[in-house]
Amino acid sequence: MGLVVQKYGGSSVADAASVLRVAKRIAAYRAAGHEVVVVVSAMGDTTDDLIELAGAVSPDPPARELDMLLTAGERIAMALLAMAISDTGHEARSFTGSQAGMITDAEHGRARIIDVTPGRIRGALDDGAIAIVAGFQGVSQTTKDITTLGRGGSDTTAVALAAALGADVCEIYTDVDGVFTADPRIAPAARRIPVIAHEEMLEMAAAGAKVLHLRSVEYARRYRVPLHIRSSFSGRPGTLIVEGEATFPTGPDQIYSSRSEDNPVEQPLISGVAHDASQGKVTIIGIPDVPGKAAAVFRIVAEAGADIDMIVQNVSTEITGRTDISFTLPAADAVAAVESITAAKEELGFQRLEYSGRIGKLSLIGAGMRSHPGVSARLFAALSDAGINIEMISTSEIRISVVMERDELARAVRAVHTAFGLDSAEGEAVVYGGTGR
Amino acid sequence: MGLVVQKYGGSSVADAASVLRVAKRIAAYRAAGHEVVVVVSAMGDTTDDLIELAGAVSPDPPARELDMLLTAGERIAMALLAMAISDTGHEARSFTGSQAGMITDAEHGRARIIDVTPGRIRGALDDGAIAIVAGFQGVSQTTKDITTLGRGGSDTTAVALAAALGADVCEIYTDVDGVFTADPRIAPAARRIPVIAHEEMLEMAAAGAKVLHLRSVEYARRYRVPLHIRSSFSGRPGTLIVEGEATFPTGPDQIYSSRSEDNPVEQPLISGVAHDASQGKVTIIGIPDVPGKAAAVFRIVAEAGADIDMIVQNVSTEITGRTDISFTLPAADAVAAVESITAAKEELGFQRLEYSGRIGKLSLIGAGMRSHPGVSARLFAALSDAGINIEMISTSEIRISVVMERDELARAVRAVHTAFGLDSAEGEAVVYGGTGR
Repeated sequence: MGLVVQKYGGSSVADAASVLRVAKRIAAYRAAGHEVVVVVSAMGDTTDDLIELAGAVSPDPPARELDMLLTAGERIAMALLAMAISDTGHEARSFTGSQAGMITDAEHGRARIIDVTPGRIRGALDDGAIAIVAGFQGVSQTTKDITTLGRGGSDTTAVALAAALGADVCEIYTDVDGVFTADPRIAPAARRIPVIAHEEMLEMAAAGAKVLHLRSVEYARRYRVPLHIRSSFSGRPGTLIVEGEATFPTGPDQIYSSRSEDNPVEQPLISGVAHDASQGKVTIIGIPDVPGKAAAVFRIVAEAGADIDMIVQNVSTEITGRTDISFTLPAADAVAAVESITAAKEELGFQRLEYSGRIGKLSLIGAGMRSHPGVSARLFAALSDAGINIEMISTSEIRISVVMERDELARAVRAVHTAFGLDSAEGEAVVYGGTGR
Repeated sequence: MGLVVQKYGGSSVADAASVLRVAKRIAAYRAAGHEVVVVVSAMGDTTDDLIELAGAVSPDPPARELDMLLTAGERIAMALLAMAISDTGHEARSFTGSQAGMITDAEHGRARIIDVTPGRIRGALDDGAIAIVAGFQGVSQTTKDITTLGRGGSDTTAVALAAALGADVCEIYTDVDGVFTADPRIAPAARRIPVIAHEEMLEMAAAGAKVLHLRSVEYARRYRVPLHIRSSFSGRPGTLIVEGEATFPTGPDQIYSSRSEDNPVEQPLISGVAHDASQGKVTIIGIPDVPGKAAAVFRIVAEAGADIDMIVQNVSTEITGRTDISFTLPAADAVAAVESITAAKEELGFQRLEYSGRIGKLSLIGAGMRSHPGVSARLFAALSDAGINIEMISTSEIRISVVMERDELARAVRAVHTAFGLDSAEGEAVVYGGTGR
């Protein structure tokens, strides 16, 4: 007996047949005696269809109204799911984000949760009902308008509810079997990671692993919510994301017995290899090596709305007194950043700007590398052996990232995966895809 | 300058092009200086599509969840309409039924409005914005759950808001040019009725005129809300429905100058001819003519959930001490009623039950008939001249209804329309259809 929050993504409720399948799964949990709260996304392509409709009536729809429109998608999915569950003999009640107490700020399209007051959800559970909650949406504390949480919003809804309700676990159902040591589409020998720490998952997500949105992992870490990533299409065990640094060699058979403090075991060196092919690299050549220049560059880039990822500054030559600064950023932000820097050429005093949209980033993540100083040497050797040139390097306590030519990325992932002994005897046949929102 | 509530039905916002057309009309009212509140139905077939989805996941969906599902339709329509309006340079804010203060009882699928607290609507108007409100929906006072108002719900939302806000007029936009002296599909010589009293419109709606739902007219009469039925596809003047008995020979040029007390004029004898081909007739033959038998019959019918319309009881013959009772009811309710009466055959002591699903009802409506006793004689003569047999008759102060064979109904409508001088010189080319919800 426990309280479980389950989140089903759009691909898990894409059509009536999927809704019925998911309803059976939910009913089985309830029948086993658990209290069940379900967070659901809009069905399949509903959100894209609604965005298309908005585009047909307005070139630049007001954000408040776009939120009002898009939240209809979750409303449809949750009502259908509640209907399907009720046919299994269990009571189900659906709740909008507002009804579920998801209180946010007023930033339409990317609202942040500022409070969760799940009184009606708790009431439904106390009545023995299954509570179905619309993901991705909330209500503004100040304006009382409907808001949406932006990318990864439904995952965040689930984690926030799990935290507020003190749930034993938050299960995130998706169309893949869990988190893998690498993207199986690139590295067929990739293995499912049975257990991983919040901290490592955060680095995985930040480094390009798409199975969970960074924001929901941050939320789970802050509120110590155990996450369980599973496929709604199979009964496989998935990946458990837990508090603390310890990780486990085997998966949990039972979701309620696997708090990390119960059974810490030896920690593997490396959790996985993530990759990101969505970034570009800007290099500013010949910028005066005087204090404040780098700060000026990154102020201009930030004002252009671009998120910088990695930064490398070369040592200046004594003769010229100039240096080069390189940084990576999402390719989608590149045009705005390059325009802003170019416009400030005189102020910054640099000689030339270069941009490459053809870079790839590989990241090795593992809490174990804290106590194993040889990790980076082994990584560089593996890449060198494969004839791959490293353009940039950045590290955190539990991550090493390297930038290379994008065309080399897939080969690099396979080489590093093998070099760190992550390959499974036989590959697990899975589809590894994004979770949408 | 005034406050106008406009309601647009599903056919008026069936697609993006229609939404844009309606947005222009609304913007023109705002630009003319009026305060504008818009009530909108779901787009085109959205509601039917959602009902089909519900059927695909559950044979008997819970009413609470069906309401949650269906209200997504209005949410989509109102957000799109607000977006389209914002592109005209006017601010528009959409509100759910709950946000608009439509407080109802908890009867899902057929909730009744028990209070209207339009504080947020008033606030939007005070800010100079156009308020867009989801029709057909509200929120239960007791359970705080989302409810729907049932058939004619969006018209009722509009009238209730107009009453609560003290609007100068409630405009109901539909796909026909107004209320006609008869259904133009049957009587091509039918004329648009420029002005009609609430009371007469109520009789017209009850007698089968589909342009407005009975319930919204009742609400408008009770709260003295002037209604204006117009086409969203044309700029034609439509039909004004006003307080009091006086009606007017010509249409209003300006919606705010036509309160009935301002210019009472001579009243026409007849407003129009309504017809209803959706009823059936039950005849109970040889029931003992003793006190309480009729009451027992109609108690049983009411318990079967059937609404009785007309009732006729023959004079009993002294010899048998038995009589016949006939009544009409919606054909959709007939099976349940016939089954219940048959099951009580012993208790009621009747000899035989007959049912006809092939009847038609013609109704002549006009406040003027109060002071003109010759109306029924003229009606019967017209039908007799056309060789049409009358099976049942019922009257109110301003209406005479007759039941006949359904096959005779269209011919009867034309004959009566002509006999009372309602034919126009040339017919107005219109499509006369239902308004859905």
